[in-house]
Amino acid sequence: MTLKVYLSGEIHTDWREQIMTGAASLDVSFDSPVTDHAASDDCGVAILGAEDNKYWHDHKGAMVNAIRTRKGIAEADVVVVRFGDQYKQWNAAFDAGYAAALGKSLIILHGPDHAHALKEVDAAALAVAQEPAQVVDILRYVLTGSLPQ
Amino acid sequence: MTLKVYLSGEIHTDWREQIMTGAASLDVSFDSPVTDHAASDDCGVAILGAEDNKYWHDHKGAMVNAIRTRKGIAEADVVVVRFGDQYKQWNAAFDAGYAAALGKSLIILHGPDHAHALKEVDAAALAVAQEPAQVVDILRYVLTGSLPQ
Amino acid sequence: MTLKVYLSGEIHTDWREQIMTGAASLDVSFDSPVTDHAASDDCGVAILGAEDNKYWHDHKGAMVNAIRTRKGIAEADVVVVRFGDQYKQWNAAFDAGYAAALGKSLIILHGPDHAHALKEVDAAALAVAQEPAQVVDILRYVLTGSLPQ
Amino acid sequence: MTLKVYLSGEIHTDWREQIMTGAASLDVSFDSPVTDHAASDDCGVAILGAEDNKYWHDHKGAMVNAIRTRKGIAEADVVVVRFGDQYKQWNAAFDAGYAAALGKSLIILHGPDHAHALKEVDAAALAVAQEPAQVVDILRYVLTGSLPQ
Amino acid sequence: MTLKVYLSGEIHTDWREQIMTGAASLDVSFDSPVTDHAASDDCGVAILGAEDNKYWHDHKGAMVNAIRTRKGIAEADVVVVRFGDQYKQWNAAFDAGYAAALGKSLIILHGPDHAHALKEVDAAALAVAQEPAQVVDILRYVLTGSLPQ
Amino acid sequence: MTLKVYLSGEIHTDWREQIMTGAASLDVSFDSPVTDHAASDDCGVAILGAEDNKYWHDHKGAMVNAIRTRKGIAEADVVVVRFGDQYKQWNAAFDAGYAAALGKSLIILHGPDHAHALKEVDAAALAVAQEPAQVVDILRYVLTGSLPQ
Amino acid sequence: MTLKVYLSGEIHTDWREQIMTGAASLDVSFDSPVTDHAASDDCGVAILGAEDNKYWHDHKGAMVNAIRTRKGIAEADVVVVRFGDQYKQWNAAFDAGYAAALGKSLIILHGPDHAHALKEVDAAALAVAQEPAQVVDILRYVLTGSLPQ
Amino acid sequence: MTLKVYLSGEIHTDWREQIMTGAASLDVSFDSPVTDHAASDDCGVAILGAEDNKYWHDHKGAMVNAIRTRKGIAEADVVVVRFGDQYKQWNAAFDAGYAAALGKSLIILHGPDHAHALKEVDAAALAVAQEPAQVVDILRYVLTGSLPQ
Repeated sequence: MTLKVYLSGEIHTDWREQIMTGAASLDVSFDSPVTDHAASDDCGVAILGAEDNKYWHDHKGAMVNAIRTRKGIAEADVVVVRFGDQYKQWNAAFDAGYAAALGKSLIILHGPDHAHALKEVDAAALAVAQEPAQVVDILRYVLTGSLPQ
Repeated sequence: MTLKVYLSGEIHTDWREQIMTGAASLDVSFDSPVTDHAASDDCGVAILGAEDNKYWHDHKGAMVNAIRTRKGIAEADVVVVRFGDQYKQWNAAFDAGYAAALGKSLIILHGPDHAHALKEVDAAALAVAQEPAQVVDILRYVLTGSLPQ
Repeated sequence: MTLKVYLSGEIHTDWREQIMTGAASLDVSFDSPVTDHAASDDCGVAILGAEDNKYWHDHKGAMVNAIRTRKGIAEADVVVVRFGDQYKQWNAAFDAGYAAALGKSLIILHGPDHAHALKEVDAAALAVAQEPAQVVDILRYVLTGSLPQ
Repeated sequence: MTLKVYLSGEIHTDWREQIMTGAASLDVSFDSPVTDHAASDDCGVAILGAEDNKYWHDHKGAMVNAIRTRKGIAEADVVVVRFGDQYKQWNAAFDAGYAAALGKSLIILHGPDHAHALKEVDAAALAVAQEPAQVVDILRYVLTGSLPQ
Repeated sequence: MTLKVYLSGEIHTDWREQIMTGAASLDVSFDSPVTDHAASDDCGVAILGAEDNKYWHDHKGAMVNAIRTRKGIAEADVVVVRFGDQYKQWNAAFDAGYAAALGKSLIILHGPDHAHALKEVDAAALAVAQEPAQVVDILRYVLTGSLPQ
Repeated sequence: MTLKVYLSGEIHTDWREQIMTGAASLDVSFDSPVTDHAASDDCGVAILGAEDNKYWHDHKGAMVNAIRTRKGIAEADVVVVRFGDQYKQWNAAFDAGYAAALGKSLIILHGPDHAHALKEVDAAALAVAQEPAQVVDILRYVLTGSLPQ
Repeated sequence: MTLKVYLSGEIHTDWREQIMTGAASLDVSFDSPVTDHAASDDCGVAILGAEDNKYWHDHKGAMVNAIRTRKGIAEADVVVVRFGDQYKQWNAAFDAGYAAALGKSLIILHGPDHAHALKEVDAAALAVAQEPAQVVDILRYVLTGSLPQ
Repeated sequence: MTLKVYLSGEIHTDWREQIMTGAASLDVSFDSPVTDHAASDDCGVAILGAEDNKYWHDHKGAMVNAIRTRKGIAEADVVVVRFGDQYKQWNAAFDAGYAAALGKSLIILHGPDHAHALKEVDAAALAVAQEPAQVVDILRYVLTGSLPQ
């Protein structure tokens, strides 16, 4: 059994690397959005032409990014969504809702301070973790049945 | 043609009433989550028994609220999601993602300050409005073909 | 908003009547399997002809009952499954799994003694209640936003 | 043609090994839940943190196990569900219902004493067997057209 | 509960009338194909223009009839397919396969002589009856729980 | 049986009125896009604010119109698409493809000169007509079984 | 592009071998039902135990065969259904209907004498052929764009 | 992540080759319709027999081509539809609508002169490009996160 895992959300810490490194020996394939913030913001106009209006500048980029995001979520078995301490991160919550509606197994990753604000998102999840290492433990258990020592 | 509209998101202003009043003469049926904040937070424990742990207190409430929310979104033709100026409003973005994955027609309602942070959410929408009156204008046009004077 | 509720499971107590009576003033439509035990067991052979073999006797009845059960679950918004104190009640658990796979909102109703044995079933539910009156409270809250006094 | 088979249900006898050994020469891939009873019960708290309340202890584990179970059933061509002589085994019946709603080919495996109690479950199956060797015979026939000598 | 029933198959006896008359007091709505043989054969060319080639004459008619047939089956809860003693009746078996793939509850109606030739069709059904009156009995039981006296 | 019919395509002749008048005595409900060309072009900017760039002017309008069009096609049993003699009419062909992918019964209406250019579109249809009166004849036959005299 | 082709229907001539041999150089994978008539009839009782009643003897076999048939059709891109000169062949028409409802590309293969009786089945097909060599030509064209010389 | 891309539309310029050459180093698999105009027009009659009537000549070909087209679109992650300067190209717009209804990521490729006529088609797209090289840039960005220098 290969597990396809999509890593959505916060892009300012190395949580994706921690999970990918921790799960390196497991039969998991990972996918994620483009996490280069500048490229992600500008991809639309860089490829398809400049826009005077900032709204359409953003819009063109968000649409191009959606090609990758939709495929990543649609093909995943498990979608992990990480909420960090800063910013609105509405795209993370949007991805969680999108994945939930597709029936994906959701793991939500966030610190205890966000628990109340994320209660509807957590309620759609099969696991709510605080640390990337816990996500690795879940993936290992799901694939091998082994619990952490 | 009757249009079924679900009004999701911000609960601290009267935007829902503005839309419902403005569209009173149109063939629209509206649905929305429970907007009584206290009831929404406590419904789980009030009905199913108290919890010592705040996390499970919140969880039981979020699950009960999901019975209404999922039905409301699933049966809607149009899902309007309003983002206000305060709070994280992750449940609003979650609902937008959920509705998008089900192929619903999305209208996102927010002020210009949030445009960049909401660009992925807006990119899934068929209309992005700033004022409740614009939502009414859209509903009128969709149902009757009449534009605002 | 009319809520369609299917009442599955235990047939030896009056829990269905308690819920239907308690929810009489709410905009709910109820459906349930045939709860006359003898008719339910014999419907296949009574209509389609006797069988020498008890297995096929049972099979013909179970198939005819499935016409009603499948429609009832497929059209429901909420599926309530009650587990009583006696018998294997595998059909109740089967209905819960069937409803879960269709994305229905599940409410599981059982006493505390069954909690461990039902943990996988409860994990698929949006609410786990012990008393029929709690189910009524949930239906009232979902439809009206009112909590019990 | 490779056949993907999910083996659900009873975990106290070696029926899974009998089927996997018997089908070793066939083009079949097998999947199953975690069958280590203690690990399966404790996985939630072992990874995500202890719970004072036994209900939530069980719940967290059941949710984590669901990540594996849902994928296993969703990807299977054939779901075999074994009912043993002991315990309530409601998770087995739940899996059968879940698989039936997804349109999976169901094989139910149980002794003759359970036939009446399982009649609704059997009615959703394409085969009802009493011995693991019969399941092997079915898999061989489906893949090769060969009947047992 | 209203039951929507589609009556497919043999058009040379009055079995549809027998069922509709027998079920007149039940909450059932019936639909069926156009049963006027000549109109059914010629509808394509009569409306859309003559064809020299008999194959396209037939084809145009079959396509127009499919508008009605597909809607009738798609909206039905129960599809009854009657096989008579004469003709190939491949359209009846086609409708049965079509309905089965859509997950409809199938009732197959035929005399005992056809049992072997129809075994794959019967295997997809929830009931196999020999007489129209048995279909009425099933509809009555499904709707009211009452068995024939 | 009520037939829901969506009338897509050419907006410069009175073909919709001909069909609606001709079918006035039949149990048909009709829906169509906004056919006021100017309103349809300008609805986006008239409601949601002007755009300097003609592309985004058009885009905003096309998105708002899609709210009506998608609902109209999704709820239809039959989608009639009319191709006139002028213009590219790519939205008509787009609607035909959209409807075909949803499994709708398609009727294509065009003059003989367009037959070759529309062969892929016609190949997805259940009927290809030249005159609105033929569409009325089809609707009457589908609903009543009566052929034109 | 690999094309998955399921070969359904008549089992008394070598049409499957003709197609598989003719398409040996193409990127096609073939699947089909068990075509050993005796094994196909008896598989149920040979594996799962004898039945006194011929109806249930047939039924058990038809159910076991359905495990293979459903998977074969569900995974196919193209379903070829051959109707021969003899027998009722209702299972062939059932498979055609089943495949049509799943949106499979259907090729129907039969002699000209059956054209009228098969007009509803042919109307659901993308190609109607008389000879196995024509099916090979279609597969070659679909995969390579080459027409027969 | 391998990206499956279907290239639909205009067949008189080398835009497909430009994209395939430009993306040669990327993990992309391409599919497209048969682009040999004569073969595409005549495939039906060349394989399945001549037709006197040009309409049926065209129809048989369009149906055979649909076997390839439907599979190509159904399996694609991204559907690129190119509109050239000539002809009606209704099949291109049909493919775009078909792909949109299946939820595919659409890239529309056309010159600025067609922007108004294609506004409904563009509104369903995630990107609207003018040059094949831009499509290559999108594919590279989606797969690698790299923007053009």
